[in-house]
Amino acid sequence: MNFEEKLLKSKTLYDGKILKLNVDEVSLPDGSLSVREYVRHSGGAGVLLVKDESVLLVKQFRYVYGKEIYEIPAGKVNRGEDGRETASRELEEETGYRAELVHYFDLYPSPGYTDEIIRIYRAVSCEFVGQKLDEGEFLKCEFIPLNKVKEMIDDGTICDAKTVSAVYRYLSEKA
Amino acid sequence: MNFEEKLLKSKTLYDGKILKLNVDEVSLPDGSLSVREYVRHSGGAGVLLVKDESVLLVKQFRYVYGKEIYEIPAGKVNRGEDGRETASRELEEETGYRAELVHYFDLYPSPGYTDEIIRIYRAVSCEFVGQKLDEGEFLKCEFIPLNKVKEMIDDGTICDAKTVSAVYRYLSEKA
Repeated sequence: MNFEEKLLKSKTLYDGKILKLNVDEVSLPDGSLSVREYVRHSGGAGVLLVKDESVLLVKQFRYVYGKEIYEIPAGKVNRGEDGRETASRELEEETGYRAELVHYFDLYPSPGYTDEIIRIYRAVSCEFVGQKLDEGEFLKCEFIPLNKVKEMIDDGTICDAKTVSAVYRYLSEKA
Repeated sequence: MNFEEKLLKSKTLYDGKILKLNVDEVSLPDGSLSVREYVRHSGGAGVLLVKDESVLLVKQFRYVYGKEIYEIPAGKVNRGEDGRETASRELEEETGYRAELVHYFDLYPSPGYTDEIIRIYRAVSCEFVGQKLDEGEFLKCEFIPLNKVKEMIDDGTICDAKTVSAVYRYLSEKA
């Protein structure tokens, strides 16, 4: 059985700095009509950097949650970049580390309403060259021991999907 | 140092069926002004159900990616529901399983532009009572062996964040 939904009419309701909002009319497999409301996003990229059994995390204020949260270094894919370039650039800007990256895995953050793909890389070697934050970017970097990071996930201090996935994958591979 | 961003003016540009889009003016820690474009979402809830070393997954067409993908049973939190009720309802509707659920962990899918919180539960016991899909909902359920699910994550067949996180967490606890 084919579950495909077919586009009938696409409409971009908002075209902003970091996202577009689309509301598309579609036909469902049984021929009925429906609407798909979703974000179009250029993609994200993040880096898991583990050094001496500690994970490099950034702590930054996230407006949507009204608080500072911990995440692996990451950012939005700019036009013309591939995920690896984004990951490498964001890692260096946010944390001051320049690293050799290998692709780790990709994530669909919330497939019901955003087309974002988050590409996760793992740093296999790194050197410190100095932080250079974007204007309007405020964050702290910290190396936190892997055991402590696991506790922070388990007790709900760390909830960010890319961070949770990357750390658990790393832990499952060490096991 | 306090990295808080302060709301100056909030505007809802779109108020849809599954999401709202906000564009807020904020002041940054250095006093400069910026804009936060983000989705307001009522939240999601999903269930990891492992039975005889196999994971219950649903395969459904996801319009944003133009293909069928595998996910743990999950859905959107309706008005008046808490996450556990959503998880329990969606599990039964989508898969026909009624289960006793314990809270597992919460996820922030993409903190840059959505306020969604996905609550993940683990089924600790279950019985089959019969699938009852919503109108316009088309999906297949499958029990897939845990080893095979791990392979499907590792080779990129499974990318959904809640599914990847829940399976890896489960695997890391078994280790």
